[in-house]
Amino acid sequence: MQNNSNIFENDKPALEKLANFRDKDILSASQFSREELDTILGMAAFYEKYLNDRNPLPDMQGRIMASLFFEPSTRTRLSFESAMHRLSGSVITVAESAKSQTSSTVKGETLYDAIRVVDGYADVIVIRSPVIGAANEAAGAAVNPVINAGDGAGEHPTQALLDLYTILKEKGTIDGLTITLLGDLKYGRTVHSLIKLLSLYDCNVVLVSPDELKMPGEIVTDVTKGGVKITEKEDLNEVVSGTDVLYVTRIQQERFDDKAEYERVKSKYIINGDTIESGKDGMSVMHPLPRVNEIETDVDKYQGAAYFRQAINGVPVRMALLALVTGRAL
Amino acid sequence: MQNNSNIFENDKPALEKLANFRDKDILSASQFSREELDTILGMAAFYEKYLNDRNPLPDMQGRIMASLFFEPSTRTRLSFESAMHRLSGSVITVAESAKSQTSSTVKGETLYDAIRVVDGYADVIVIRSPVIGAANEAAGAAVNPVINAGDGAGEHPTQALLDLYTILKEKGTIDGLTITLLGDLKYGRTVHSLIKLLSLYDCNVVLVSPDELKMPGEIVTDVTKGGVKITEKEDLNEVVSGTDVLYVTRIQQERFDDKAEYERVKSKYIINGDTIESGKDGMSVMHPLPRVNEIETDVDKYQGAAYFRQAINGVPVRMALLALVTGRAL
Amino acid sequence: MQNNSNIFENDKPALEKLANFRDKDILSASQFSREELDTILGMAAFYEKYLNDRNPLPDMQGRIMASLFFEPSTRTRLSFESAMHRLSGSVITVAESAKSQTSSTVKGETLYDAIRVVDGYADVIVIRSPVIGAANEAAGAAVNPVINAGDGAGEHPTQALLDLYTILKEKGTIDGLTITLLGDLKYGRTVHSLIKLLSLYDCNVVLVSPDELKMPGEIVTDVTKGGVKITEKEDLNEVVSGTDVLYVTRIQQERFDDKAEYERVKSKYIINGDTIESGKDGMSVMHPLPRVNEIETDVDKYQGAAYFRQAINGVPVRMALLALVTGRAL
Repeated sequence: MQNNSNIFENDKPALEKLANFRDKDILSASQFSREELDTILGMAAFYEKYLNDRNPLPDMQGRIMASLFFEPSTRTRLSFESAMHRLSGSVITVAESAKSQTSSTVKGETLYDAIRVVDGYADVIVIRSPVIGAANEAAGAAVNPVINAGDGAGEHPTQALLDLYTILKEKGTIDGLTITLLGDLKYGRTVHSLIKLLSLYDCNVVLVSPDELKMPGEIVTDVTKGGVKITEKEDLNEVVSGTDVLYVTRIQQERFDDKAEYERVKSKYIINGDTIESGKDGMSVMHPLPRVNEIETDVDKYQGAAYFRQAINGVPVRMALLALVTGRAL
Repeated sequence: MQNNSNIFENDKPALEKLANFRDKDILSASQFSREELDTILGMAAFYEKYLNDRNPLPDMQGRIMASLFFEPSTRTRLSFESAMHRLSGSVITVAESAKSQTSSTVKGETLYDAIRVVDGYADVIVIRSPVIGAANEAAGAAVNPVINAGDGAGEHPTQALLDLYTILKEKGTIDGLTITLLGDLKYGRTVHSLIKLLSLYDCNVVLVSPDELKMPGEIVTDVTKGGVKITEKEDLNEVVSGTDVLYVTRIQQERFDDKAEYERVKSKYIINGDTIESGKDGMSVMHPLPRVNEIETDVDKYQGAAYFRQAINGVPVRMALLALVTGRAL
Repeated sequence: MQNNSNIFENDKPALEKLANFRDKDILSASQFSREELDTILGMAAFYEKYLNDRNPLPDMQGRIMASLFFEPSTRTRLSFESAMHRLSGSVITVAESAKSQTSSTVKGETLYDAIRVVDGYADVIVIRSPVIGAANEAAGAAVNPVINAGDGAGEHPTQALLDLYTILKEKGTIDGLTITLLGDLKYGRTVHSLIKLLSLYDCNVVLVSPDELKMPGEIVTDVTKGGVKITEKEDLNEVVSGTDVLYVTRIQQERFDDKAEYERVKSKYIINGDTIESGKDGMSVMHPLPRVNEIETDVDKYQGAAYFRQAINGVPVRMALLALVTGRAL
């Protein structure tokens, strides 16, 4: 069994591994081999050390990131922009609101045309869209590398990478862990991307959700092939005591046709002090945020509450990705 | 009597005074001692000299300011962002419009959660909110320093500081002056913050407003305790000839239940060429802007018309604050 | 006949020519002499070489551009911001959406007041407005140079400059060419500005439009005086075989009172593979973008399809303008 914790002890990954990412698009969690994950997360760990020392990093100096958010996602957008600035790079931004549209897409232009042009204004393109497949379409139009920052119900690979990075940082390893994914596993783009990455490791994944919101069967089949051991449950109480990492997602009322069923179900998926007490000693609690009420705020002071650290891990992970795909990590 | 004008003659304030601001939040005009005001404004004057020489200032190089404007305030936002760029720093921005909301607050997230995350993306947080107390709440969530850029009917301390700086620059001193605050003194956050700062000086403050829009009694009582001499009037004509600084604010129709009363009152508070002629020789005219019609445009060419210079003074004052609280002014 | 192609072979234009632009506003395509055009485009070509080498350019270091877009125009805004970043400058941005207004103009402030203030925050102002004359008004208020990025039905001089630059780059010269402007020539701000620039060269301009959308007579009269040979047609087929550069603009349905007339007309102005085949060998196809359906996408792969290159040429041209008017190109 490989020891992953060394990404935090070692120096920069080897040059030839870094060079493999040059000009690559980051589109799907499915695109990575385990070795590639080690390189990305190793580079992230390398950058994080600099961040902690507040040393200036000139790696992206003179380079421009186009930050194209065709739907609001403040956290992800600011995280990418912070990452770019931390590397001394510049940013040009389109930040659409839910209700207004300020970009040319208003005027009936295709995404292809928009990206062909922006590609000439920047060195790397980060795109968020409500439309599934938008990042792939952008990658087809652009000469420069494209990073998918979420495409509707599709993928959110950089979130999955920072989730993985967080588990490694909190636990020192992924192999051997029992990782429980909780909540809406049917529509949750985040957990779909994460489970694909976990399938490259030797860990147990427990899926806990209401029957209406189970992980799609084809994803379960897929990752099982990869060797991951999957258990499916409806009741968190049955598994919490054996859980090393509890990954919580929100259950949205809109997902239920039967509102009575929603009311019956929702409180069973709320994490509070009792959950922590029944949980395994040192259990890490994660959440992609924003949280509404699915984790009570008194859990925040629990040492294993990792969700804010998790969000902040987005910066070094995105620094690594930006520098890798532009060939500036070399 | 202390001579304040020396902030424009002296060099950088002493290191130990600058160091006191490190990691401090800037939340309220009430938080400053007179000595602290001297340090902030002295630092602003120091930076202004560099601005005028167009010398590059690397003080915030590699640092990120989060510019979180949860309600529109273009002037204040651009002023802070300009200040950060003038110090070679970087900026990540949330700029909500009045009608749309692009940030995650849409999704029901608390301000606490939002700030906990952004705190990990930046080195200093500037927050504007329509909600009173929002900046204090943000300061409670953030490890990094927080600067209040206006919280609803609450405080706007950086505006008060730039107002004070402007008086010092226009008049060379504050002690001994007669400063007249005119217009809506009941709801005007700006004048509430300013009068608190003036209470630390040995000056006369004249309050001129319609009866409906008088300065709240508790603020008057408070600042009187500090030693400031307050006079209250309804008619500007009675006091304009003795006024050194005339600080004009807008009277909004919405404040009046009785529209006839508004019509009766409003023209009495409009500044024009006649006001200037009846005013004290060299009287400075200030306004927090935006102005609609409360100062006629032919006043703009009057040498004592200080309102545009006042707005622009926001840049060095905010440069000083950003560098002080991040410990980068040292 | 002057040979323009040398702008791509020569080095930086002579210092005394560059110095002439210092503190100048860029408001109208009519303001330039042919020599001035050579200087601007020569400077653009100089910068483009650096862009291609990815060499860092410090020309605008420590300088701030205010990017004031009071109506959406993502392409133009990002192009200016990219240009500023490519020169190591900083940007402060107002990006209004069509439906929301986040700036102080909401509060009833005049453009004059807004610009007087922003002028103190920045070293150069780029303004886009739906209001004709807005850039001129801004130039009247600002001490710093103002660049018109489009004012309603008025002017769009930087678009005309990048169009000219594109023709020079694609064709090596402008003199002697036959340039056909197609589509809505009545309301198209872009073609109005371009034809003014072309009037300084020794070329043939063919105007092809439906009768309802002809180039305004006074513009035709004006440029004819300058020596340009103008031909007006309704049918592209009559002239395409002699066209060196085909400049396509969109015909908007809203322009037609009679919808039947629109239906009759529109397909005649759509460019497809057949148009290219009947066109002159090597004919360049340009379009200011966004395109909706007026150029079919299978034309994109045609070598003479210059519209994406044209958009990207906006970066070096705007770099040149920014550096010239701030005196930083010297």
